[in-house]
Amino acid sequence: MTDIGGFHDRVARIDLSTGDVAYESIDDEDARKYLGARGLGVKYVFEAGPDVDPLGPENPLVFMNGALTGTQVTMSGRIAVCTKSPLTGTVTDSHHGGWSGARLKWAGFDGLCFEGQADDPVYAYVEDGDVELRDASHLWGEGFHDARDALESEVGGTYGQDLSVMGIGPGAENEVRFGCIVNEDDRASGRGGTGCVMGSKNLKAVVVKATTDMPEPADPATFEEGHEQAMQAILESEITGPNEGGLSVYGTNVLMNITEEMDGLPTANARYTSTEAASEAYGVDLDAERVSGETVRGEILVDEPTCHSCPVACKKEVEVSYRHKGEEMNVRMESFEYEPAFSLGPNSMNDDKESIAVMIDRCNDLTIDAIETGNMLAMAMELTEADVLGGDDEYDVDGIDWGDDEAMIDVIEQIGRRDDVGDLLAEGASRVAERLDAGEHSLAVKGQTMPAYDPRCMKGMGIAYATSNRGACHLRAYTPAAEILGVPEKVDPYDWEGKGELTAAFQDLHAVSDSFDICKFNAFAEGIEEYVLQYNGMTGLDVTEDDLLKAGERIYTLERYYNNLAGFDGADDSLPARFLEGGTPGQGASEGEYCELEAMKREYYDHRGWVDGVVPDEKLAELEIDVGPGTGVSNGGSGEAVSDD
Amino acid sequence: MTDIGGFHDRVARIDLSTGDVAYESIDDEDARKYLGARGLGVKYVFEAGPDVDPLGPENPLVFMNGALTGTQVTMSGRIAVCTKSPLTGTVTDSHHGGWSGARLKWAGFDGLCFEGQADDPVYAYVEDGDVELRDASHLWGEGFHDARDALESEVGGTYGQDLSVMGIGPGAENEVRFGCIVNEDDRASGRGGTGCVMGSKNLKAVVVKATTDMPEPADPATFEEGHEQAMQAILESEITGPNEGGLSVYGTNVLMNITEEMDGLPTANARYTSTEAASEAYGVDLDAERVSGETVRGEILVDEPTCHSCPVACKKEVEVSYRHKGEEMNVRMESFEYEPAFSLGPNSMNDDKESIAVMIDRCNDLTIDAIETGNMLAMAMELTEADVLGGDDEYDVDGIDWGDDEAMIDVIEQIGRRDDVGDLLAEGASRVAERLDAGEHSLAVKGQTMPAYDPRCMKGMGIAYATSNRGACHLRAYTPAAEILGVPEKVDPYDWEGKGELTAAFQDLHAVSDSFDICKFNAFAEGIEEYVLQYNGMTGLDVTEDDLLKAGERIYTLERYYNNLAGFDGADDSLPARFLEGGTPGQGASEGEYCELEAMKREYYDHRGWVDGVVPDEKLAELEIDVGPGTGVSNGGSGEAVSDD
Repeated sequence: MTDIGGFHDRVARIDLSTGDVAYESIDDEDARKYLGARGLGVKYVFEAGPDVDPLGPENPLVFMNGALTGTQVTMSGRIAVCTKSPLTGTVTDSHHGGWSGARLKWAGFDGLCFEGQADDPVYAYVEDGDVELRDASHLWGEGFHDARDALESEVGGTYGQDLSVMGIGPGAENEVRFGCIVNEDDRASGRGGTGCVMGSKNLKAVVVKATTDMPEPADPATFEEGHEQAMQAILESEITGPNEGGLSVYGTNVLMNITEEMDGLPTANARYTSTEAASEAYGVDLDAERVSGETVRGEILVDEPTCHSCPVACKKEVEVSYRHKGEEMNVRMESFEYEPAFSLGPNSMNDDKESIAVMIDRCNDLTIDAIETGNMLAMAMELTEADVLGGDDEYDVDGIDWGDDEAMIDVIEQIGRRDDVGDLLAEGASRVAERLDAGEHSLAVKGQTMPAYDPRCMKGMGIAYATSNRGACHLRAYTPAAEILGVPEKVDPYDWEGKGELTAAFQDLHAVSDSFDICKFNAFAEGIEEYVLQYNGMTGLDVTEDDLLKAGERIYTLERYYNNLAGFDGADDSLPARFLEGGTPGQGASEGEYCELEAMKREYYDHRGWVDGVVPDEKLAELEIDVGPGTGVSNGGSGEAVSDD
Repeated sequence: MTDIGGFHDRVARIDLSTGDVAYESIDDEDARKYLGARGLGVKYVFEAGPDVDPLGPENPLVFMNGALTGTQVTMSGRIAVCTKSPLTGTVTDSHHGGWSGARLKWAGFDGLCFEGQADDPVYAYVEDGDVELRDASHLWGEGFHDARDALESEVGGTYGQDLSVMGIGPGAENEVRFGCIVNEDDRASGRGGTGCVMGSKNLKAVVVKATTDMPEPADPATFEEGHEQAMQAILESEITGPNEGGLSVYGTNVLMNITEEMDGLPTANARYTSTEAASEAYGVDLDAERVSGETVRGEILVDEPTCHSCPVACKKEVEVSYRHKGEEMNVRMESFEYEPAFSLGPNSMNDDKESIAVMIDRCNDLTIDAIETGNMLAMAMELTEADVLGGDDEYDVDGIDWGDDEAMIDVIEQIGRRDDVGDLLAEGASRVAERLDAGEHSLAVKGQTMPAYDPRCMKGMGIAYATSNRGACHLRAYTPAAEILGVPEKVDPYDWEGKGELTAAFQDLHAVSDSFDICKFNAFAEGIEEYVLQYNGMTGLDVTEDDLLKAGERIYTLERYYNNLAGFDGADDSLPARFLEGGTPGQGASEGEYCELEAMKREYYDHRGWVDGVVPDEKLAELEIDVGPGTGVSNGGSGEAVSDD
């Protein structure tokens, strides 16, 4: 039983096959070593073995709070969902913002570990330290939003006041490999197919009922010092502060015009690095500005929701009317984010913001990752242009033309329903590429496609995508902090030297915040000093900055070790070929640039003390990682490794 | 039938006594002369005669859209509610933000005019050009929020997507004289008792169903020129722009710290002009900063909703936990505005922001004006201190101590239910003062209490309060634009000269925007030039700046003429005595200041061409006002005039 503050010390282990629910404590030593959320969640997944079938009953689906979730700490409304990914074959963690994690804490839990598979659809109802499985057969097949409304009526309470739902729609039910879990109106643990695993378990939703009940700090004076310092930094920061034209004002989509301007916005399935260049090449009029945060705010903004304990309010809720094949669609949704705006927008050569809002809404309702979906559509467009899709191929499916927003909406529905071409695309970019022998068209790394930062322009993103433990990802090491925003200091995005070390440092730091579990936006304003004060203040521990960063390294290394055992090594730390060659002509500042991946990998592995992407035994010993076979050899597992190589 | 664009040309006249619904057109000439919304609505009220009993069947309750309501014009989601006020005895107009007005336009209506009184509670259901009266007996007595939810279930649709409800709760049902009408979650036509009139008519709600259907401009090129110019000005303005620390960031409550700093925040029932001064006088620790927009954003913000077509998003939705007599109250509500924060906060010597959020929420649910309620409580506190309330008085009620937030919450409930002392306070400040022979404690002008700008510090507010046609009000002439914010140019708040003319100019300008019906925030960034372009662009008319300002003067004068006929003259253009004497010691910049009302009134009447507050016949002729007996004599009506004099 843990004596660490901030934890309720209660995890429910729910066997969906038998319906049994057992309650257990978190081991103090584990809490100290892995902090919580992502760190503890990954450890739970590890303990099930790295060679499980992601869609089999033995793969656990772990919802894990951090030590700081649901506290007064700024932006602490987060929870990690950890599992073995059906998209990548790696361990994965994906996080919900909003209130669900906080509410789970207030309902008396640090985590929920789902194992097995239910015979018939169920949902988990959580209240006051208890978990109950309830029939969800009547909700199966319902979109997330309707299912959530039905659950609200069924259990009573008011959504957003004393009730949270993390649930899935048809896409995740149908085991679309990039199925996600949605909560609040439109937040998601988006990446890596956590929803697909939930679907495979016949688990429709996790419903949590609790009113606000923030834990008290164990050491209030220390906590207050850290909290006030953090709050002041956040409010004064040019990036997070409400008085500046940053995240508070335009949300994450403040980046659209910035990356376009610096020639770092992947466009037309990352053939180009700006809509300007793609427009010239294709002779069209495509303009990122039309889908930018500035335009969204000026024309379709209706709301700016926050997450628990957040003064930033980065969500930009929009309302649009869109005519789809003569039918009017009225959509209101709260996640017009930079990433899906990129994937369903410029990367698919679409700059109709109304259509993008409709598409994101459909992705959320079907619960399929909007980033992966947009990139999948962009790849399908490129495959259409290359005559691989469409026409008389064996799949007998229509191709999709660049920027055809009406077709995109139809295909999104087909993916979610696994109808027609959707059944193929639901497998994700790497499997589609393998099936069609078209690997050069895929933007995936370890089976997951890249987000909205071009690694020919931001070299750090290249090494970050390649070495991410969950496939291409901007959130494992957010190098744009330094490469665009100058945090902690400005570095030249086109330089590759030092980017290996920078990436490792961000990976460790983010592993800490993902385990607390607090939003990375904190890190735009505050630093490890405030993390230490608030963590010590809340838990009553006395850790140092080095202790925390060591914990971050431990968590990152544990994930890598899992992946090694599942069959991944340095060869999987790769990038799509187009980033390794000189950029297409007409790319402005990025013209002729390519990502110096091998050089950065050498620097990165040296810094990490890994051998060609594999964690050696001595590193495991140094970091006191004592789970698994303890060898660190690669190819130790039999899990499926999917990559583009 | 009007041929003016922007109008659907359809007004429903609903006789609640008989249940008959008739549809009529707007006269072209009326639309040109009175623009819409406030202007047209007041004219409808005028036609019923200025001597009606505000709570009798003959007093019409007019919901009237403007020519620009529900269009692409920025902040055009507004609708006016016009009636004879049961609080002031004057004509009054009060406006809903949000989407209700826009949705009414999209449902095919420019206005709804309710007459008579229903035998049993009803609600009006509006869809697709039709109005239907439906039984609301089962909803009578329900708070606004529950009633709204029940109506949503009953009629189908999704609140905020294709459904709006403007409705009342128990306070307005019980004819609290400052009962209001609430829409969206927590917006209101707050002032003047429009909800009280609705309650007297047994009309529980107006339910409107429609999806977005913005009218096309008659002259798109002219419209676009004005719209783009306006949008750019709004986005670049220091006050409305999203990149600045103004309304976008902190909402209206950005003013709390500003007025405190300039010694213009009425505190302790306006005995003092800052919490600092009141703290010193009473030996307590009261601090406006604790309830400021900055603190709210940093600590309890959860959402920033907008209104239709608004890039500002001034709403600051909060979530709080508050312990009231041992019971936990969890409240989420979207209107932590400067005005109720002042009246329920510093003016009542309360700086507990959580309690204020709870109180505003209760006021909204009971549908009683939160400004009037807070000021009523502040007056009750002063009466308690003066031994007029509490103890062995004839009312046999407990007094309320300054800043006793738990008692305030109880008394708010009592006002809404008309229980105990609440039955007295529900009559409003002037009637309470009359009953208790305690006029010197009332902050009312023409029966309505003053908002959050002290006229000893901002002299323009003094003449604006005094000459407002609907009782003390900051929105008939928002002189703080010039006196605090420097729009259109900075004037010294302590100077009185020129303030009469300034007030008249603002009154006319705001009468125009209230008749369009667009938010006054537009006027912080754009001006009459953009108004003309957008109005002409939308309607196809060809009006000049002078035409519009003349229409504003016409509307303002029509209201004054109504009031003259109802018995009001220059003697009613007054201020509470405490503002006419030298300020209390220890007031900082405001020390020794008083409001030079008589001098400003002379300037104002001269500028207006009125005779001691009365509109002469030649002015009526000049402005082509051709309703009413056409004499302009005062005391022509028999309506009740309530004032403090």
